[in-house]
Amino acid sequence: LELAIGIDIGGTSTKLALIDKTGHFHNTHSFPTGNKNQDTPYIDRLIDQIKPIITSFNGTAKNLLGIGIGAPSTNEKMGTIEYPANLPFDGILPIVKILTETFSLPTFLIKDASAALLGEYYFGKGRGKENFIMITLGTGLGCGIMVNGKILNGANGLAGELGHVPVHLSDRKCGCGKYGCLETYVSARGLVRTALDYMSKEIIDSPLRKLSFDTLDAKVIYEHAKKGDELAQKVFSITGKLLGQKIAELITLLEPSSIVLAGGLAEAGAILTDPVLATIDQFLLPMHKNLVQVTCSNLPVNHAALSGAASLTWVSSQSSISYTNHPTKII
Amino acid sequence: LELAIGIDIGGTSTKLALIDKTGHFHNTHSFPTGNKNQDTPYIDRLIDQIKPIITSFNGTAKNLLGIGIGAPSTNEKMGTIEYPANLPFDGILPIVKILTETFSLPTFLIKDASAALLGEYYFGKGRGKENFIMITLGTGLGCGIMVNGKILNGANGLAGELGHVPVHLSDRKCGCGKYGCLETYVSARGLVRTALDYMSKEIIDSPLRKLSFDTLDAKVIYEHAKKGDELAQKVFSITGKLLGQKIAELITLLEPSSIVLAGGLAEAGAILTDPVLATIDQFLLPMHKNLVQVTCSNLPVNHAALSGAASLTWVSSQSSISYTNHPTKII
Repeated sequence: LELAIGIDIGGTSTKLALIDKTGHFHNTHSFPTGNKNQDTPYIDRLIDQIKPIITSFNGTAKNLLGIGIGAPSTNEKMGTIEYPANLPFDGILPIVKILTETFSLPTFLIKDASAALLGEYYFGKGRGKENFIMITLGTGLGCGIMVNGKILNGANGLAGELGHVPVHLSDRKCGCGKYGCLETYVSARGLVRTALDYMSKEIIDSPLRKLSFDTLDAKVIYEHAKKGDELAQKVFSITGKLLGQKIAELITLLEPSSIVLAGGLAEAGAILTDPVLATIDQFLLPMHKNLVQVTCSNLPVNHAALSGAASLTWVSSQSSISYTNHPTKII
Repeated sequence: LELAIGIDIGGTSTKLALIDKTGHFHNTHSFPTGNKNQDTPYIDRLIDQIKPIITSFNGTAKNLLGIGIGAPSTNEKMGTIEYPANLPFDGILPIVKILTETFSLPTFLIKDASAALLGEYYFGKGRGKENFIMITLGTGLGCGIMVNGKILNGANGLAGELGHVPVHLSDRKCGCGKYGCLETYVSARGLVRTALDYMSKEIIDSPLRKLSFDTLDAKVIYEHAKKGDELAQKVFSITGKLLGQKIAELITLLEPSSIVLAGGLAEAGAILTDPVLATIDQFLLPMHKNLVQVTCSNLPVNHAALSGAASLTWVSSQSSISYTNHPTKII
């Protein structure tokens, strides 16, 4: 049995899993990514978590192919994580070099959105699709684009910032400093902002009016929408409509064979996708109508990123870096 | 000397040229594409134009590599032009099969926007750029996208319709049936529409007010703008601003290394590009600022499409079809 370690480094937690080439998960655990004030640096805490996984291979017939990492702020060419905004270290972490030297295993690094895209491509709704787009709706809005069977990285690895394309002229401020970015509307946080905005403009009564901005979250809004609350439903329909408009633009420009929605917000299912689907057609050229599948991912949350990262160890052509390609050794 | 015949089929005229692998033009001529009422069908008139070119090779040491065609409404996989809106024939024309059988030469077909993209890629501002976008501003707005050194065609060859992405909520009707499409603003015709709209809203005097919609064209507006007419300049600045906003979206999403503007309207130069460049930065993420080159093509008008079409005969990997790949024979 051949297995790879997939690692998904996020701001809140770091997930690790042992995954085989069919995308089956054999083992998975996570630890808090933590903060800068901890005694043990992040990279040492990560190494401590990887060690027992590797040791577990001793004396078995299983073969460890290597380590694949998905992370934010990556420089894939250099195998480094650089000046991350939400990770507990500063400057440049040469993570591929460090893990390669520590474990003598082929180690690969790819940006988090691309890891999720590869997971969908090999094991999810993107399987067999050479041209598809994945939109991840979590705290923010992430996007991965596959073109001709290769990840669209852009000239400097900075492509795919769909979350920061403007919705329309809007005075809603984004964390990036601009106004009206798509993720200020279409994301878990965006849903809460739209709820507040809608409450301020309309007079429909709703239990949501008893909740503060800080206690409101996407899940609460979803649960009220499901129970029939008109205001909560309207918030989803506004959000879905804006997402539908942008998806229509993506289809007009890139004509993928499908668009896969993933992340926490996509778990809302039809409450979100109904207004998305109802909107798309209005904004498409006749030749693009009913051509592109828009669906929600059927992979468990995080599995796309973990299996996509792991897949780099057996399909290294998708990674722009293979820091080492010496044969797999288990230490 | 190795040469190829490049053909650019347009609604008004069909251009033919003999081009070598360095992109040098040895011979070029054109004939009116004509209409459906002509006695001789279009394909026969085209064959009559190709014949003397091929005959001219007799008794020379020159080698004819084949024929490359750029056309609208192509089905590249089948080598056919299908139900064209602006060409003088109906239904499906199996142009690759007919020309291959007539001349026993390798013949390739690609859509017009892709031919122009390849011309820029091999001989123009896209040279050496694996990720770049070409925007052609003519009667309408065309777009070609290169990703990882391959043309982005979309899942069914229907990608690149940047002209039909909405600018913003607008009541300006497009030929496609939708409202507010980018090409209703950013194109030669769009410029005229914006001039009328602006005249209707503002009270600035201008010689343009003496001209009817039908006599106004992009060239007249350009000439008045160059002479300092405030209204004409304002029309270019509105147009450039809208184009700049969309280019910023393209950069945010696709991060090409450069964006090349071509076509008649791009010949306006700084009058158009100054407002484009001034607008882009406002809509970009900090990491994307000053990263992407936005320039006008330096190839003569039509040369990009002709040389791109011709290049298919020596770089057939960019074409999705090679109807025949038997060795070049001259008949």
